[in-house]
Amino acid sequence: MSLLDKLQWRYATKKMDSSKSVPQEKVEKILEAIRLTASSSGLQPYELIVITNKDLREKIKGVANNQSQVTDCSHLVVFAAWDNYTAERINAAFDMTETERNFKNDAGVAYRQMLLKNYPARGPEVNFIHTAKQAYIGLGTALIAAAEEGVDSTPMEGFDPKALDEILNLKEKGLRSVVMLPLGYRKEDEDWLVKLKKVRRPKESFISWMN
Amino acid sequence: MSLLDKLQWRYATKKMDSSKSVPQEKVEKILEAIRLTASSSGLQPYELIVITNKDLREKIKGVANNQSQVTDCSHLVVFAAWDNYTAERINAAFDMTETERNFKNDAGVAYRQMLLKNYPARGPEVNFIHTAKQAYIGLGTALIAAAEEGVDSTPMEGFDPKALDEILNLKEKGLRSVVMLPLGYRKEDEDWLVKLKKVRRPKESFISWMN
Repeated sequence: MSLLDKLQWRYATKKMDSSKSVPQEKVEKILEAIRLTASSSGLQPYELIVITNKDLREKIKGVANNQSQVTDCSHLVVFAAWDNYTAERINAAFDMTETERNFKNDAGVAYRQMLLKNYPARGPEVNFIHTAKQAYIGLGTALIAAAEEGVDSTPMEGFDPKALDEILNLKEKGLRSVVMLPLGYRKEDEDWLVKLKKVRRPKESFISWMN
Repeated sequence: MSLLDKLQWRYATKKMDSSKSVPQEKVEKILEAIRLTASSSGLQPYELIVITNKDLREKIKGVANNQSQVTDCSHLVVFAAWDNYTAERINAAFDMTETERNFKNDAGVAYRQMLLKNYPARGPEVNFIHTAKQAYIGLGTALIAAAEEGVDSTPMEGFDPKALDEILNLKEKGLRSVVMLPLGYRKEDEDWLVKLKKVRRPKESFISWMN
């Protein structure tokens, strides 16, 4: 299946089949795709929390408009972004890259210093907006990775992030929840969306050219 | 090539070969992948501006830290997000979907009303943060789509968005630039990054499980 076919195949699954579980190896591949994708300055300023625990997902459903996919999926992936860029986090990322590559140059040193000077000073709110955006690159990646594995998913912003942060103890980890992605399998006969046409803005209004 | 192989193959190309041009059909496929991917409530609250014009890209380079990829690529894709959610934009999206599907139900009507009530009232700054995030789903998609076509790319946040908005007259279109993606081909012998190892946070620190 080509990438365009995969994007046509996927849809925001409204009803998942709670009797089916995504095999571990498929979940691992989806998570690995997210881990490998790009992020600003390579900082990967977010984490993934994968929740299979039923009680926990029941609790989360309560702060997510009771959306059934939260409990009908087999794996609930929460994208949780750094609540701030700190010198410690920036240094850890650069240290790791230099060690892994056994490579360090003047440009890299200057770039690290530039981030250390600018990022923490912007304050947590500006920084969280930036880290959250990077998580959305991961989300775009995850949707394709899931489709490649024949796994259904639903990007989900409809939850109370503060309540979710509390349930998952994210604050003490310096994280804030951004978006959730239940992974599972569609229950076709109970899903109102599955047979409806995928509608997108026509390319003439979505894309413009300056030649 | 599997998705994971594509993600390994791609990298933020630092030096592009200005003598090579990405074929139109490949560019179209990359843009189509972005158009097909998901967005919150299906609103697709951003547009793509594809710039091949040399003079224009020379001007843009001037507000983008003189990064050479802006002019060495063959196609510069600018992701420009809606500056706000307005009733007009929300209604246009829902009207289109209902027409295309020839389908309308109570839940859909209620959902539209909920967005009409909540989104415009949040104000342009909150809304722009949200629309920009959706563009990053598109960015994550574009990186994979480019790799699928064997096309190099570089996600680029390092530019002055207000200056770019002026150059492209985005304000009058109700858009604000978010991120750029030059598409082209790597010039291997002049690219310092191409041979360095791709470094990512180990999965143990990037992913946690709650079973």
